[in-house]
Amino acid sequence: MTIRPSAISLPDLASLVRDVPDFPRPGIVFKDITPLLADPAGLDLCVERLARVAEAWKPELVAGIESRGFIVGAPLARQLGLGFVPVRKRGKLPSATVGIDYALEYGSDRLEVHADAICTSQRVLIADDLLATGGTAAATGHLVEKLGGEVCGYSFIITLEFLAGRDRLRQGVPVESILSY
Amino acid sequence: MTIRPSAISLPDLASLVRDVPDFPRPGIVFKDITPLLADPAGLDLCVERLARVAEAWKPELVAGIESRGFIVGAPLARQLGLGFVPVRKRGKLPSATVGIDYALEYGSDRLEVHADAICTSQRVLIADDLLATGGTAAATGHLVEKLGGEVCGYSFIITLEFLAGRDRLRQGVPVESILSY
Repeated sequence: MTIRPSAISLPDLASLVRDVPDFPRPGIVFKDITPLLADPAGLDLCVERLARVAEAWKPELVAGIESRGFIVGAPLARQLGLGFVPVRKRGKLPSATVGIDYALEYGSDRLEVHADAICTSQRVLIADDLLATGGTAAATGHLVEKLGGEVCGYSFIITLEFLAGRDRLRQGVPVESILSY
Repeated sequence: MTIRPSAISLPDLASLVRDVPDFPRPGIVFKDITPLLADPAGLDLCVERLARVAEAWKPELVAGIESRGFIVGAPLARQLGLGFVPVRKRGKLPSATVGIDYALEYGSDRLEVHADAICTSQRVLIADDLLATGGTAAATGHLVEKLGGEVCGYSFIITLEFLAGRDRLRQGVPVESILSY
């Protein structure tokens, strides 16, 4: 059994992202990656390309943000020959956790990671499907640093450039995104 | 970049599953797979072994159950050269969905999948981290069938045999689980 090579181009990939108007709220156009994930060559190209860029950052671990970040992060970790650490919503992880609260448009939320999941100075690649305002990605970065880890880079399938999420991430940390809007 | 071969045995794999007492409720011993996922060889062996068994079932698509099923299902889909479909909790998917309600110990919950995610007669492999009472896995099977798909098999990392979850899945559909308790 071998993983077949990508037989798809970037424009093809973009055509597999579906615009869904008025989700999750009226006026928002949601970038739906499920058609891309459902396409074997699409999924493969995303993982391959993100891995090819990220390996230069010398990651030692991949952290994926619940829940679509799991879909990106787990195959990315495997492609890089690394382990995978889930960053989860409040109360989901069974063992001792370290958490971080972060602001949402209305109210706040909390992300948690197992306290023993990241070692001091470990180089952590953070993966998610989409970079929007950067609130979740920035909070995950702070969480990694809280445990003594070093964020060596961010991997996304999509960036919504008009929301300027990169500005909220630690400056100097590289960010790869396959598609931008 | 190549995916390195598994350098780990099944007993090693079992030692990477951590028992967490009293989670999510007093009296429950939770099987925590996060140490296994964090181990590159552990993650790799799970995906490789599940794929090796499942390819005989001739799947055409992998459906992962939110959210730990995403961690198993996405790399499994890629290993099999297939696309991935997320089966999600209520209200998470942006486009038109088909859903199914299923009973929990107290109350009920709902799983949804995009209505266009599965074609008639498509052979769908259902992936999750753990088979417990089988309620979620059985509901996902019904959901696949509701869309005209055929469940060709189930892949789990762990089965809690004493909860007899297999009995709730459609008889005759093969089930692979790497570890059993």
